[in-house]
Amino acid sequence: MTYCVGLKLDQGLVFLSDTRTNAGLDNVARFRKMFHWQEPGERAIVMVTAGNLAITQAVINRLQDAIDNSDPDGTLLSAKTMSEVAQHVGDAMQQVQGKYHQTLEQRNENSTATIMVGGQLKGGKPRLFLVYSAGNFIEATEDTPYLQIGEHKYGKPILDRVITPATPLSDGIKAVLLSMDSTLRSNLSVGMPLDLAVLPAGKCQFSMRRRIEADDEHFRALSEAWSQALRDAFTDMPD
Amino acid sequence: MTYCVGLKLDQGLVFLSDTRTNAGLDNVARFRKMFHWQEPGERAIVMVTAGNLAITQAVINRLQDAIDNSDPDGTLLSAKTMSEVAQHVGDAMQQVQGKYHQTLEQRNENSTATIMVGGQLKGGKPRLFLVYSAGNFIEATEDTPYLQIGEHKYGKPILDRVITPATPLSDGIKAVLLSMDSTLRSNLSVGMPLDLAVLPAGKCQFSMRRRIEADDEHFRALSEAWSQALRDAFTDMPD
Repeated sequence: MTYCVGLKLDQGLVFLSDTRTNAGLDNVARFRKMFHWQEPGERAIVMVTAGNLAITQAVINRLQDAIDNSDPDGTLLSAKTMSEVAQHVGDAMQQVQGKYHQTLEQRNENSTATIMVGGQLKGGKPRLFLVYSAGNFIEATEDTPYLQIGEHKYGKPILDRVITPATPLSDGIKAVLLSMDSTLRSNLSVGMPLDLAVLPAGKCQFSMRRRIEADDEHFRALSEAWSQALRDAFTDMPD
Repeated sequence: MTYCVGLKLDQGLVFLSDTRTNAGLDNVARFRKMFHWQEPGERAIVMVTAGNLAITQAVINRLQDAIDNSDPDGTLLSAKTMSEVAQHVGDAMQQVQGKYHQTLEQRNENSTATIMVGGQLKGGKPRLFLVYSAGNFIEATEDTPYLQIGEHKYGKPILDRVITPATPLSDGIKAVLLSMDSTLRSNLSVGMPLDLAVLPAGKCQFSMRRRIEADDEHFRALSEAWSQALRDAFTDMPD
């Protein structure tokens, strides 16, 4: 499984993904699920993926091949708007699913895959989309300033409580890390290391793209401080 | 859907269930999912149920009919041990599934159902079991002092952080209420009112069996205090 979360805040976008994949409990591996494209000041795009790994890798490869071959039908780097970017991702998803869905189904294997794609193009606003297995997609609005894919339930309560569009970027980063921390503690199929990306509004350039390893001191300190704060808060609750 | 949680603490057992059922989002209703049997000082048994409501109600009816008819094969009230109690529940589940599973499957309907059963008989210890759709069951041990059925993921992180066998009953009650509160906030298919039961070790008698209505002041105060404490804790986290 997987857990990825994306925030669309007034101050910009924040993405966090884990790196664990598993085909059954006895076949666990580590794969990057976060991908970036950047032309500083012009465009910055990030994707995180969940579901069938062969499917999501094939989608990413198709998108990258289109860029490498300057596909005349357009690419992530020629798109004029973020919705055109999402459309490219959806189209690639639809093509890949068209090739494999039925064969996978015949083998009782799951072709479900989802991709969150966000970013900003010069002259546009930061936008955040969720592309489904069918290639269709939704966009985060101010009513729902975050999206999640994969094992989303453990880490949802903290987001529901603290995230609004007005949340500052620095708090957004803390919130996604704590949301991930709750998920890591409660679900074996989500695992370190993590990939974090931060895209401040109006810059079209990532301010942070960072891999957080299992022994990362800052993450461990945050995780422990949060555990302690939760226990303290619990102790202080009225009976 | 449903969320029910049971704790097996050194000081006794705590159970909490919601009351929402739904057959699709447009068919939502309220049904009790907690059931008790008590002979004060002799035996106290509690069950909470999740899954196909017709299945779980049929299981409970079978168990109650066996009591009412003094079934010579034994009943919840004639059982000598809690594992015999769990066996009765499992057998009833197996019989009901035997009758309906295939017909439901043919209609693409889900027959999955789970029942958590706990209690204490005079001379025995408090025990907590989880009965699966197949009628087989597991028992909570000190390694895993809580069990959950239904929408269990939202409310798991708080339990993972605070519950150990040594947790006092009063803290156990707070923890299950907060675990439920997180679930209620994040999942529409779990809803008020709640049913709470507390069975202190060694008494074979419930110290509390209470319905918590949507307008319950204590629950609302706890919920608000917890939200505030979480937001405060979040604000205090290191960047």
